[in-house]
Amino acid sequence: MTGTGESSATEGVGVEQSRREEELIERVVRSFDTCADPRLKELMTALVRHVHAFIRETRLTGAEWNKAIEFLTATGHITDDKRQEFILLSDVLGASMQTIAVNNEAYRNATEATVWGPFFVEGSPEIPLGGDMSFGAVGQPCWVEGTVTDTDGTPVPGALVEVWEADEDGLYDVQYTDDRTAARAHFRTDVQGSYRFWGITPTPYPIPHDGPVGRLLQAVGRSPMRASHLHFLVRAPGHRELVTHIFVRGDELLDKDSVFGVKESLVKDFEEQPAGTPTPDGRVVDGTWSKVRFDIVLAPAEA
Amino acid sequence: MTGTGESSATEGVGVEQSRREEELIERVVRSFDTCADPRLKELMTALVRHVHAFIRETRLTGAEWNKAIEFLTATGHITDDKRQEFILLSDVLGASMQTIAVNNEAYRNATEATVWGPFFVEGSPEIPLGGDMSFGAVGQPCWVEGTVTDTDGTPVPGALVEVWEADEDGLYDVQYTDDRTAARAHFRTDVQGSYRFWGITPTPYPIPHDGPVGRLLQAVGRSPMRASHLHFLVRAPGHRELVTHIFVRGDELLDKDSVFGVKESLVKDFEEQPAGTPTPDGRVVDGTWSKVRFDIVLAPAEA
Repeated sequence: MTGTGESSATEGVGVEQSRREEELIERVVRSFDTCADPRLKELMTALVRHVHAFIRETRLTGAEWNKAIEFLTATGHITDDKRQEFILLSDVLGASMQTIAVNNEAYRNATEATVWGPFFVEGSPEIPLGGDMSFGAVGQPCWVEGTVTDTDGTPVPGALVEVWEADEDGLYDVQYTDDRTAARAHFRTDVQGSYRFWGITPTPYPIPHDGPVGRLLQAVGRSPMRASHLHFLVRAPGHRELVTHIFVRGDELLDKDSVFGVKESLVKDFEEQPAGTPTPDGRVVDGTWSKVRFDIVLAPAEA
Repeated sequence: MTGTGESSATEGVGVEQSRREEELIERVVRSFDTCADPRLKELMTALVRHVHAFIRETRLTGAEWNKAIEFLTATGHITDDKRQEFILLSDVLGASMQTIAVNNEAYRNATEATVWGPFFVEGSPEIPLGGDMSFGAVGQPCWVEGTVTDTDGTPVPGALVEVWEADEDGLYDVQYTDDRTAARAHFRTDVQGSYRFWGITPTPYPIPHDGPVGRLLQAVGRSPMRASHLHFLVRAPGHRELVTHIFVRGDELLDKDSVFGVKESLVKDFEEQPAGTPTPDGRVVDGTWSKVRFDIVLAPAEA
C-alpha cells in the first residue's frame, strides 16, 4: 500500500539498516493476523504502516518522540466533558475535514459538506418559517432564504433544517455559563422546498487556543481564527444527510480558516442593507441588516 | 513523499472527489508555510500527509473517527505520573521500537539496540563485579558474564553498565508499593573490558493490560505478554550509548513479544545448571541456577 513511500524513505540509509526497519514493519503487521474483525485489521495495519513510514522518513529522534508523548498526554489531560482537545487536534490537522470529505463523495451538483464543529446541540427550539433563530444573541440581523432540492432541481418539502452560529462576540450559547439557548433553531421547508429565517451576520472567532493545540498553532505560526460562518444540518428521507456551513464572501480569513472548513462553493454574498431598508417580511430593524441566499442541493441517500 | 500511496488511495474514487481530497491536503500542508522552525515544519507536514493518506486509503467513517477520538481520550485519562498509556500504545504499534531502530543505525558488528521500557530508574545501587543485583528479588539465580569491546574487538575498560529486570512474579521493584530497590544495579567493566554479576533468570510478564491499550490488544487477538528479558544500558566515552535487552532462547514468546523488542542477535543461551553444580565464583546456590554470556560491542559515538 505504501511500498513506494517506504523505499523513498530509506534514501541515504544503508542496506542492512533498511532491512531491519522493513522487517520490523512486517513483524508488526503480521501481529494483527489474529484479528477476527477484517475492518479493524485493515485499519490497524494501515495505521502501523503510516506511523512507521512517518518515523522512517523523518528519522524521528528520541527527543522528538518524547515531545510527541508529552503533547498527547497534555491533550488527554485537558480533555473533559466540556472540552475535547483531540477533536481540536483533528480539526487543525485537517483530519476532521478529510473524514467529512471521504464520507460525502462529490455527487453532481450536490452541496458540499464541511465540519460539524463542537457546538451542535440536540433539541434546539423549533421556529416557524420566517422566524428568528437568534433568541436575543447579539449581532447584526441577517435574513437567510433559499430552497432545498434534489440534484434534478425537484423541491424537497418538509426537509428538517437545523441552523446554529456564534454571536458577534464569537461565542456560542453553550460557551456561556447561564444555560441560555440562543442562535440555534430548527424548522422545516415548505411545500415548495423553500425556507427563510432571521439569524445574525456571522463574525470570526478563535477556536479554544489556551491548550496544547493552541500552543502547537503558535509554534508553527498559525492563527486559531475560524472564518465567519453559519452552520446548517439538513435531513430529508431518501437524501444524504448534509452537514455544512456558509461563509461570508470578502472575509479575510477565508483562506486561513484554522480547521480548513472553507470550500469555495460555500462562500456566499451577505448583502449589507443600509439602516431603514425595508425587510422582506416587514420586520422593523433598528439599524443595518444583511441578507443572504443559500440554495441547498441534497444528494440521494445511496450516493 | 507519499505520492504513489496517495494515487493508489484514490482507486475507485471519482476524479472530482480525488481532486477535492488532494486539494485539502495541499491546503493543510501550506498552512505550515509560516513555521519558522524547519524541522517542526518537516515533522508536521509529514504527519499531515500520513494522517490524510490513512483516512483516504481506509475511507475512514465518521463512526470510526469517533471511536479513535474516544480511544485517545481514554488513553489520556488513564495516563498519570505512574502510568503512561501513550508510551504503551507506541510500544504495541512497534513505533517505540522503530524509533530506536532509526536512531541506532546498523554499524558493522555493533550490538543491536531495543526498547527502553518504562522501568529504568536513575540511581540504581552500585555493585562490585561478580556482585548480586537481585537484592532479594525472587527468581532462579543467573550468572551473567561477558565483555564490552568496540567494533574492532578492543576492550572498553571502565564502561558503565546498568542492568534491570522483573522478578519471577513478573514485577519490577517499582511496581511494588513498598519502595523496595531490587533486581537493578550498575557496575563498571574491568581493565580487560570484562564484566560478571549474579541476576535472576528472566521470566515472561504482561504489559499493563487493564486499560485502553489492553482492550485494543484483546480486540485484535494479541497477547500482552513480553518475552523474558534482561535490560542493559551501556555507556562509555567515545562510544554510542547502547540500550538493549537479552532474551532467552527457547522462550515461546520470542516471536510474539507484545512490544516487538526481540532481535535474533539478542537471543542468548541461558544454560540451566542442575542443583549442586559448582558456580563460577564458589557461591553456594540452593537449587538450580543458570548462566549466560553476553559480549557487547559498542559502535563509535559518531556512527
